[in-house]
Parts: sequence; structure tokens; C-alpha cells
Amino acid sequence: MKFLSKKILFICGLSWSTMLLSQSSTVTQYVNPFIGTGAVNGSSLSGNNFPGATTPFGMVQLSPDTKEAPDWSVASGYNYNDKSIYGFSHTHLSGTGVGDLFDISLMPYSRQRKYPIYSRFDHEEENAKPGYYQVNLLEDQIKVELTATQHAGFQKYTYHKDSAEFVLLDLDHSMPKGSWGCRIIAAQIKIIDKHTIEGFRIITGWVPLRKIYFYAQFSKPIIRQKLQNGSTLYKNQSIINGTDLKAYLKFEKNSNPLLVKLALSPVSTENAKANLEAEIPNWDINNTTEQANNLWQKELGKIQIEGTEKQKRIFYTAMYHAFTQPNKLSDVNGDYMAADYTTRNEPNGYYSTFSLWDMYRAAAPLYTILQPKKTSAFVNSMIDHYKEFGLLPIWGLWGQENYCMIGNHAIPVVVNAVLNHLPGINPKAAYEAVKNSSLTSHINAPFDIWENYHYMPENLQSQSVSITLEMSYDDWCVAQLAQRLGKTEDYKHFMDRSKYYKNLYDANSGFFRAKNDKKAWIEPFSPLNYGANGGNPYTEGNAWQYLWYVPQDIPSLISLIGGKSMFIKRLDSLFTLKDSTVKLNNNASGLIGQYAHGNEPSHHIAYLYDYAGVPWKTQFYTHKILQEMYNDSFSGYAGNEDCGQMASWYIFSAMGFYPVNPANGIFAIGSPLLQQATINLPSGKTFTVNAKNVSNENIYIQSATLNGRPFTHTYLTIHNIQNGGKLVFIMGDKPNKKWGTNKEDIPPYSIFNKN
Amino acid sequence: MKFLSKKILFICGLSWSTMLLSQSSTVTQYVNPFIGTGAVNGSSLSGNNFPGATTPFGMVQLSPDTKEAPDWSVASGYNYNDKSIYGFSHTHLSGTGVGDLFDISLMPYSRQRKYPIYSRFDHEEENAKPGYYQVNLLEDQIKVELTATQHAGFQKYTYHKDSAEFVLLDLDHSMPKGSWGCRIIAAQIKIIDKHTIEGFRIITGWVPLRKIYFYAQFSKPIIRQKLQNGSTLYKNQSIINGTDLKAYLKFEKNSNPLLVKLALSPVSTENAKANLEAEIPNWDINNTTEQANNLWQKELGKIQIEGTEKQKRIFYTAMYHAFTQPNKLSDVNGDYMAADYTTRNEPNGYYSTFSLWDMYRAAAPLYTILQPKKTSAFVNSMIDHYKEFGLLPIWGLWGQENYCMIGNHAIPVVVNAVLNHLPGINPKAAYEAVKNSSLTSHINAPFDIWENYHYMPENLQSQSVSITLEMSYDDWCVAQLAQRLGKTEDYKHFMDRSKYYKNLYDANSGFFRAKNDKKAWIEPFSPLNYGANGGNPYTEGNAWQYLWYVPQDIPSLISLIGGKSMFIKRLDSLFTLKDSTVKLNNNASGLIGQYAHGNEPSHHIAYLYDYAGVPWKTQFYTHKILQEMYNDSFSGYAGNEDCGQMASWYIFSAMGFYPVNPANGIFAIGSPLLQQATINLPSGKTFTVNAKNVSNENIYIQSATLNGRPFTHTYLTIHNIQNGGKLVFIMGDKPNKKWGTNKEDIPPYSIFNKN
Repeated sequence: MKFLSKKILFICGLSWSTMLLSQSSTVTQYVNPFIGTGAVNGSSLSGNNFPGATTPFGMVQLSPDTKEAPDWSVASGYNYNDKSIYGFSHTHLSGTGVGDLFDISLMPYSRQRKYPIYSRFDHEEENAKPGYYQVNLLEDQIKVELTATQHAGFQKYTYHKDSAEFVLLDLDHSMPKGSWGCRIIAAQIKIIDKHTIEGFRIITGWVPLRKIYFYAQFSKPIIRQKLQNGSTLYKNQSIINGTDLKAYLKFEKNSNPLLVKLALSPVSTENAKANLEAEIPNWDINNTTEQANNLWQKELGKIQIEGTEKQKRIFYTAMYHAFTQPNKLSDVNGDYMAADYTTRNEPNGYYSTFSLWDMYRAAAPLYTILQPKKTSAFVNSMIDHYKEFGLLPIWGLWGQENYCMIGNHAIPVVVNAVLNHLPGINPKAAYEAVKNSSLTSHINAPFDIWENYHYMPENLQSQSVSITLEMSYDDWCVAQLAQRLGKTEDYKHFMDRSKYYKNLYDANSGFFRAKNDKKAWIEPFSPLNYGANGGNPYTEGNAWQYLWYVPQDIPSLISLIGGKSMFIKRLDSLFTLKDSTVKLNNNASGLIGQYAHGNEPSHHIAYLYDYAGVPWKTQFYTHKILQEMYNDSFSGYAGNEDCGQMASWYIFSAMGFYPVNPANGIFAIGSPLLQQATINLPSGKTFTVNAKNVSNENIYIQSATLNGRPFTHTYLTIHNIQNGGKLVFIMGDKPNKKWGTNKEDIPPYSIFNKN
Repeated sequence: MKFLSKKILFICGLSWSTMLLSQSSTVTQYVNPFIGTGAVNGSSLSGNNFPGATTPFGMVQLSPDTKEAPDWSVASGYNYNDKSIYGFSHTHLSGTGVGDLFDISLMPYSRQRKYPIYSRFDHEEENAKPGYYQVNLLEDQIKVELTATQHAGFQKYTYHKDSAEFVLLDLDHSMPKGSWGCRIIAAQIKIIDKHTIEGFRIITGWVPLRKIYFYAQFSKPIIRQKLQNGSTLYKNQSIINGTDLKAYLKFEKNSNPLLVKLALSPVSTENAKANLEAEIPNWDINNTTEQANNLWQKELGKIQIEGTEKQKRIFYTAMYHAFTQPNKLSDVNGDYMAADYTTRNEPNGYYSTFSLWDMYRAAAPLYTILQPKKTSAFVNSMIDHYKEFGLLPIWGLWGQENYCMIGNHAIPVVVNAVLNHLPGINPKAAYEAVKNSSLTSHINAPFDIWENYHYMPENLQSQSVSITLEMSYDDWCVAQLAQRLGKTEDYKHFMDRSKYYKNLYDANSGFFRAKNDKKAWIEPFSPLNYGANGGNPYTEGNAWQYLWYVPQDIPSLISLIGGKSMFIKRLDSLFTLKDSTVKLNNNASGLIGQYAHGNEPSHHIAYLYDYAGVPWKTQFYTHKILQEMYNDSFSGYAGNEDCGQMASWYIFSAMGFYPVNPANGIFAIGSPLLQQATINLPSGKTFTVNAKNVSNENIYIQSATLNGRPFTHTYLTIHNIQNGGKLVFIMGDKPNKKWGTNKEDIPPYSIFNKN
């Protein structure tokens, strides 16, 4: 693999003038869409990212699928270690642990053969950059180029001059049927004329029901067509209905490549057609490619960094992954399918792909800073979801709920947005949504039990320790918004609930442990034992990893554990304790002792040393994680990238700070990796972090200034950032054990409310 | 069972004045909704009708279900032989061989117990009339009364004065899960306030996807609620999402009965609410009951008859069953879910429940005469279906296709409507629909094979003999519309295809028989052997029954069989040949020899004697069928009533004529059963058939006059009827072998086109 150089940009048709104009600040050149697309076999977990073409927050992710029916291990459709491509489908998830979507697959081929139609490919003949992907299909000798707009994919197939030009349109391509109950409910292919095909598929899978309508145009005429429904072939026919539908198309052969543009809609083929007409009115694929790149340049350029080339590649690819979702679900005209399966309209755009258990931690705070308008649209989409569904989304996919993971972590996202005064969000509607989402029981969230027992008894609700900890945090968030809105009783009630985590702390073992409904500790207990997604008190982790999850009140956690020195000792143990006998959960990867950077429960932990007055230890471990858990290869992430969360950890941490509590406006300071990072804020202001003398050895903060004045806090506030300014760190190779250690330097409770 | 007497009408609150006003012409009093609701065990097939409350062509059929999960044997939800009621659900099919719908069930109960909640009932404490049903639930001592509007059900639960008032709202109630792939995709119950609940369910079953939204109001406040998702109970909660949802509701106890009104929509809860507000704005259930009765009176009063009380009961119940469907699928505002799963709007109303293999034969011609405007709406709905789906419906349910049965019998319905100049149908759009539906292959209709072989080879397409015969007829219909529109080439093409049936006539055996794709007869062959719905050349019948299916050209059939006397001899054999050794198909019932009135392929056969110059034999057998195959008991039909077809056979035949070819404007004359029948035509004219001296013995036509002039034709034309007038038959107990036997008296080819 080599990602796209300037030379290739030229080849694919961008004008020099455009390139020269933007060259000075062009950051998309650093993006390597292959980062996270595969695992080093046996030694890591794939990021589960896809390398294909997409636009920021777009509906369409046009990307190659390297499996006939991609499962969780190829959740993005593409595994860098695979050798063949089975088609180019229009929707993909980036970094998830469950694979779904893969809608409307096209596969060019040059000789007739039996289904499945696939072709070998080689990374040496494969390239990608933001909004563009290219591969050569080896047996078929077809050069495939992909680009995308918000709602459409645009493809160019350059066949060998001597070979026939076939395309398979595959509406049956999906995750394995039966997996998550996956089944195609209905589908249709309608050949409108020799250049136009429309249709749809209705599919149940990870979410109950997705409707995907499409409208496709081909630059050359179809000269032969076969439609297939299951095992039955229909020749010379222009429409087919069924569940397992395919169209085998033969196109006129001439010296021009075959171009295909295909738009999606969740509402109707008419809307898909309107989306296509609005976004790709002509056949200029180079123009569309350039547009896509420009969109990315605009978004990624919001942070300008100085650092090594490798750091830039990791950083801007992280930005790219962070802004790949949430995804627009509404059509150009605002239509979308709501959580109650009705067609509704949202002129400002309706969004989905809310992998909230992951993205509430760092991705959402990143959006709040860099994408405040979009964040408002995300939050309003969540509030609309609440109106139709009775709950804020837990894991929102194509506007629906799959109940994946635990907690109700739309709450911190919504609360943080309101507390930050993001424009266009109705605080009362937001509060109704977060409050009722905290009272309305659902899978993994039995609030009646919560209110009755003041903890989750494992025999009544599995994953009880993780849920108790995470729900306590969500409740704290509700309380914060209640306080802001003057709802004193609600504030008290939810603040009480936010302390329920204490009821599962076992001072004897020094861990959060499971109790049954008789308040008895569940035996036997081993803090190393892993849980997965049920049947165990811990979610995708163990007691060591979940010991640290009280972001809403770390001083209380420190007390609970036995004071600062014990807290530090236990943290040290976390990062050093190794045990090769325990059976790891699939999601446990990126290990440093028991710390597992490959999964989200660990993400805030390295910053906790700040709260205990030993910030140099935060500096040590955050630097170690930045260096060891990220690289610029296909296996660049230590685990599933998880819809921007793993990327956002890097983006924040490489700049030197991180939102330990993603709803209190505070960012704990770690160890800046980059020489300099400048955030171009939406207000027009800039916030710059400069790390003088930073190097692989000089990882410790010696001193700092903020806007020229001495700065000793181990935290920034959102206001520090939003007001603009310059934070300068002087770095050295030895800890300065005096910097950031005074009481007032420790990250406070919240900038929005008092404790 | 006793159906509703005038006394009971009074009890349930209709005013005397209303009754007195309408008494002279009140025909709804004769309707017994229990006819067809059960089989005499072991000796007949149930009509599969339901006894509950509905309005003509309405969306809602509110009726008791006597099984927890009704299957094909209780396709209407209700079996007269059952002893318990499991709930009152809002949608039902009338007379089908497959059970589906059963949406949104409510079950009142008076003491808490485990699911399923059911109660014994007794026909002695059960009553029904058009638009009203009442039953006493015995253990629970609850009197249940049901009525309906187009889109809503209205229920009254009178609990015992000492018992608690519970209602189960069951969104999981359906046909057996897994049957036809039945599975609930998603559902929601939302308790809006103490008097209001809304929600929906999305279900896949006999058709791919139905969305049923509801909005319900209760006259008394809910004082306790438990929501259930699968095995999980949620107390004190107002919303639940899932697949297997139930709400256990407890209502305030006072001296008033509990009233429930619940409206449906296929589009949204907002539309369901609007439907309810439009149709049941208040709590006057007696008024709604009266309205429903008035709607039926208006429709059933379109034919006024004189005859015995029993004849009136059978006749008007048949009218009631004929007008129970097609059903309105669109909301009050015109919204509906189209065949491509989009939301569309049809201000004139969108209809579904098109059991076309059945209803094209006699029900559709009946609608053409009595319901021309509705027929236009039905036909336009079919044409819209074609636009979204590429095919006219085969069996249209809730706007979708289940491909049930064979042929494409929307074609005769659409063609007949256009040839009859029904208002508001675009002939070009209609022709495009019928033509493309005759060229676009689909399940059981491979037109490429049809055009290639000029018959269906059984090894390529099962049910080949039945399909060859029925497809030939549909092709003839297409040709007729082509001729009308001056499309000469199409006319020739489809006329050629309409003769393909001849390619399967085996002169040696004297039957239509299956060939393979090598043109060889498939051996062994027994004309008595039954096929079902695949795996055999005959569909739900045998070679004897399918020998007669050439309604488009009976003279050619007579020639094929060997001339008139051979034709008569073979017909005589059909009605007399008995064989107890052959295994009957489930649908073969109502047998007279090999004639099976219980299923549709036989329905036209008794009229074929007219075409051979022996009309007295038609008179004999049609009278015999009228007398033997219909009665006014719960087992009043000889087989599944099939969405109005079995009923329409009676309606036509009891008046003395029948549409042997339902698209040529000709009605063959049989033996009038009724003393007099007057059709009140939409034009304001009347057409009266008077049968002087008719009796159980006087079944033969001695002579006739039409508008005072001697009439010897064994047929009427649609114009004879539409022009109004009076047809008088003089009946006697011996055949008049001279009447109707001249060449010009034999039913002609068509009144619309020449051969």
C-alpha cells in the first residue's frame, strides 16, 4: 500500500492551480485511509476502518469489501490482510466491533463467471486519499476509482482495452444472513433505461429495519442485462422484486472508461434521484474527487500541526476518522426515516451513527470544539430520536437503536452541548430527553432496580459493576443540567444516584465488585477475570480496568481507594501488572499491564495521576500510549477505532490534553507530542499549543505559560480553548515534580456548576 | 348463536325513530355475520369469515380471535367451533385460506392471571349484525360490544359491578411466528396520558412488511400499568420498544362501562390520531354503531330482493361478505404506504386486499355493476401498485404482494373496468400496466418460457396446466384492451398467446395435461389426482376441474373436446363421477361428482351447458348448487368464502345470471332462485329480475321477457343491466328444452370487441 502522493493526484486529474493554491496548508495529503484497516495477524486487533471514499459526516462510504459476507472481524468490510475484493458497496461503518450496512454493492468484471464474483488485488496497485480510492482488480484487469459526495458514490471503471465490460449490481450483499437476525425483507431492481437503474432494499440486521433506496446512472449504455432473484435468472427484463436480488449488466465497449454514479436515500428512489441531481449533476468525476478532497481539507484544516511526517500522518488520519461520522441520514431535501419508522423532515439535517459508548468520551468533546453547529445537529437528532422512541439513542444506526453496550451516554453529549450553549438546542427539550432517558427502563438499564437497590445486583442485571459505574456518571450529567435549569429536586435526586457507584466498592479487595440483590458480594472474585457483553459483572474488561470509572468525582474515588498515595500505587499497579494466565476478552488489546488502550474503558485512566498530584506520571504514560499504541501502518490502532473515539484520544492527547469528564468543560493535561498544534476555532480565534524542546526523550513538562503568563494547572477549561490564545510548554527529559502539583493545579469539579 | 334481532338493536341504544324510518327497506337485519365462521367438523371447510364489526371496504375489522395464534385453519381469527376468545384485534381477512393481520389486540379481563389471557364464551350470549358484535366473556363476566368506522374500532366493556377492570393490549398477537416467516420487526407502546395510548408494530409475514400505527383512547383513567417486553416486565413506565410487547392496564372502577376507541394508520401515529378524531370525535358508541349499520344499509340496499327469509339471510350476508373488502389502506388524509414501502398520498383513497385469483371471477364484476366509483379506486390502486412494483398485484395485502396462487388476474379486473368506461381510469396507464404485467416474469409466471414454449412445461414451471389455462385467459384480456386502444400488433400477439391452452389438450385422454419441455406428455396421468400449490400440474384441483377453463372462447373448447354432445357428456360426467379413493386437496369441498363448489376453479362450470345449447342443465345444476352449497348457518359456505367470491357467486346466481368470462360484458343465465331481485344502479335506474312461480321444484325457465318483449337469450349483457329494465322469467318444474337453445341465444364472444 502507498497512500496518494501528489503525483497520483495529478494523474487522477486535479489541476495544478488548485494544488498549488492549497499546497501550503494542505493537510489531506497526510491522511492515510489504510490506517486501521487491518491487524498484524495474531498480535493486534484491527481498527476496523475502511479505506474507501467518503465525505465528512456523509451518508455514503463507498469502499471495497474483501469478504463475501463481512462479519464482526471485518466490520468495515475491508481487511488489509485479505487478498480479494467482492464488490464496492456504498455504506460502511468505521471502526466498529459489529459489521453492518454494506448496502448496494457494484462489482465490475470482464469475463462471465459464477457468483460470487471477486478479484484478487495487491496493495502495490491500490491507493487512497480522503474522498478517493483506487485499486486494480488483477484477474479482470480493471482499474477501479471511487469518489463520493454526501449522498452519492461516483465510480470509474477502466477495463482492459480488449475485455468486455460487465458490472454486477448486488442487492443481497450484507453481513452474514442470520447474524443479528440479518434478513432482507424486500428488494427491487428497476432498469429505467439503458443508462439508469433504481431500486431499494429493506433489511433487518443490527437494527430492526433499514430502507435503502438508490438511483444509479451509467455513462455507457447497458447492452445486455440479466436479473436474478435467488436462483432464478430473468433475461431481457427490466424489473425484479424479491429478497436476494442481483443484476448482471453488460455495457457497450468503447475507448472510454465506464462511469457510475449512485445516490442513496432512506426514503424513496425519487429522493435518491434528487440527491444525485443535486450533488453530481454531470460526469466530471475529477471535479467530484476534488470537491470531496476540499471538504476534507476544510474540516481537517481546523487543526494545523507541526511535528514529524509520521505524526502528521497519524494525526490527520485520526482527524479523518473522527469526522467520518456521525453520518447524515437525511436527504438533500431534509427527508429521513425516523426512529418510529415514519418519514419526517429536518431541514438542518438529521444524523445517525452514534456509537455513544465510545464517542461520548473524546470524539463528542472534539466535535463540540471544532464542529459546534454539527454538534447541535447531532444533539437535535438525538432529541428527535428521543421524541419518537422515548429514549435518547444508546447506539444509533441509520436512525434506529441496537442497544449495543451499556449506559446512556447520549446524556453526557446532550448535557455538554447545552452547558456549552451550542446554538439551536432547546434546553427544555434536551432536559426532558435526558431526564426521561434516565427513568425509562430498557435493555441493560432497569431504572426501577437502580432506584430500588442503589446499585445493579448482578443476579438481576448482568454487567452490573460496569453499569453501576457508567450509570452513576450519566446521572451526574443529568444532575448538572437540572442544576443549570434550576430544577433543584431533580438535581438532588440525580446527584444521589450519581453516588451509587460507592455501593459496589469493596474496601477489602480494593475493587468495585458485584453484589447480588441480597447485598452480598458475589464469589469467587478475581480482579483479572474478564467479562464480555453479559454474564459477568464487567463489560469487555475486568475489575482492574473498571476501578477508575468515576470521572464525575475523582477526589471521592481517591478517598474511596484510600487516599492519594494508595491511589497512585494502585494506578502504578494497573500499568505494570501482567498476568499471562487470564483469558482476555476479544476487545482487550493495546495492553500496558492491565491497562488496555484497545478498548474505551481505559481511555481516561492515564490522566488520573494529574488528580493525585503526580502529573509527571500522566505525562509518562500518555506519551507511552501515544508512541506505542498508534502508528501510521494499516494496523495503526491498538484496537477497534470505534467511530472516532480511538482517533480522538490521539488528537487530544497529541496536543497535550484530554476530556477525562466529557461534560464538565475540563481537559486534563498530559504530555504534548506535537511541536505545535493550532486549533482554528469556528469563532475565527485560534488556540495554539506549543511544546518547546519536545522529543521522544523530552516528554515531561518543565514549565508552561498561557498567553504569556505562567501556567501551572494540570488542566485547561473549554473557555481557555474557546477564548483563543497560546499555551506554551517547556519540555524536558526529567519530570519537574513541582509543576502542576499544588492543590489549585489539580483539575476541578466542573466549569459549569459547583459541587 | 343468534344474530341480532330488533329487540337487541333497541337494547344497544338505537332510537326507535331511526329504526322505524328505515324499517321498510332495512336489509341489514338479514345479515348473519356468523355465516361462514366455522365448519361442521369433518364434513365441510370453514368459510373462514369473521363475525366482528366492520364497515364496507374499511381498514378496520374489529373481531374476536379464538386462537392464541390463528393459523390457516382459522384464517379469520374466529372459528365457530372454538370455545374461548383470546382478544379482539383490529384487522382480519374474510374468507381467505391463509391467516394474517390480527393487528393490535385488546382483551378485557377482571382478574389477574398469566398470559395468554382468554375467556370462554357461549354462542347463546353472542350476537352480531353489520357493524356490531357482542359477546359475554364467561369467566370474567364482561359484556364486550364492538363497532367500527373505516379506520377505527370502538369497544364497550361492561364489567361485573364487583370486579376489577383490566385490559391487555397485545402487540405480539399474530399468526404463528415463523409461519410464512412471520416475525415482528419492531413495536412500540407509548402511554401518552391516563386516557391515551399510541404505538405501532412492524411485522413481516404473508407479505414482506406491514406497518400498523395506532392511537387509542379510553373513557376511564388508567390507574396502573405494566409494560412487558418479552419476559421482562416494566412497572410505572410509559413507553416500551421491542418486538413482543404487551401492556397490562388497570382502569378506574365506577358504575360506567369502559369505552375504548382505537384507530389505525399504515403511516404514523399522527395519522392514526387524525383518523380517530375525524371518525369518532365523541364517546357515543351507539351513534357509531348506527353509522356503521347505515353504511351497510346503503351498500346492501343496492339490491332489494323478495324471497324466503332464509334466502334473504344468505343473500344479504353474501352481499355483506362481498363488500367487506377490498379494504381501504389509506388514511383519512389520503396517506398510505405504497408497494415500494414509501409513504404516498391518494386523495381518492388507496385500497388493498386483492384476493384476485378468487375475486376476479364474480366479485369484481359485481363491484363493476354496484360499485363503479369504488371499482375505479380499486383499479387505480392496482395501477399505482404496478407503478411501484412493476406488476399488477397477484394477491395484494396491505399494499404488498404475497404471490399467492397463479395467473395475473388483476388483468381481467383492470381490462373489464376500462372496457366498461368506469370513470377516472387512464386507459393508457391501464394498458401499460396489463401489458407489462404480462411480459415481466415473476414467481409462477415465467413469460420467457411462455413465449418460448407456447405452454408451461411442468419440469420448468410447476402447476403448468392450471397456469397455461389461466394465463391464456389473462392474455385474452390484454388483447381485448389492445384492440380497444387500436394496438393491432399487441392484439395479435396476445390473442396468439390466449390460444396456448390448446397445446396442452390431449385428445386421447380428453383432458388438459402436462407436458415437459420436450413436448412429451408427463406420465402417469390420472384425471382424478389432485394438485395443491406446487409440485403438480394442477392448482388446488384435478384435470376434471381444469378441463373447463377457457372462458375466453368456449366454442373452441367445445370443438377441442369433440363437439357439443361430447362436451355435454363430459360435463354430465363431471357432475356425477365419484371416486372415494382419491386423496382430495384441502381446498376441494362442496363436491357434486368432481365439481367442487368449495373452490374457485369450478365456479363457472355449471353455466357452460348454456354454451352447448342445453340451458336447462345449467338451470338444474346452478339451482342444485344454490340450494346445497349455501345455507344460513355458521357453516353456510361450502369452502373458504375467499374475500367475496363465494358470496358473489350466490348473489349473481340467485338473481339468475353469472359472469362466466368476467371481462366480456356477458352474463350467462342460470336458474333464478329469488322471486324478485331489483338492482338499484348508481345511475338511478333499476334492473329487476322477476321469477314467476319459482320454487324448489319450479327451477326451469319456461319463458322470459325483457322489458315486456320475449327474451330467449341464455345471457344478459352488462348493457342490459346498466340500461335498467325488467327481466321476467316464467318458471316451471320441467325443462323447456326449446327456450334458449337457438344459436343466437348462446352467450356470445364479447360485447366489447369482435372475435
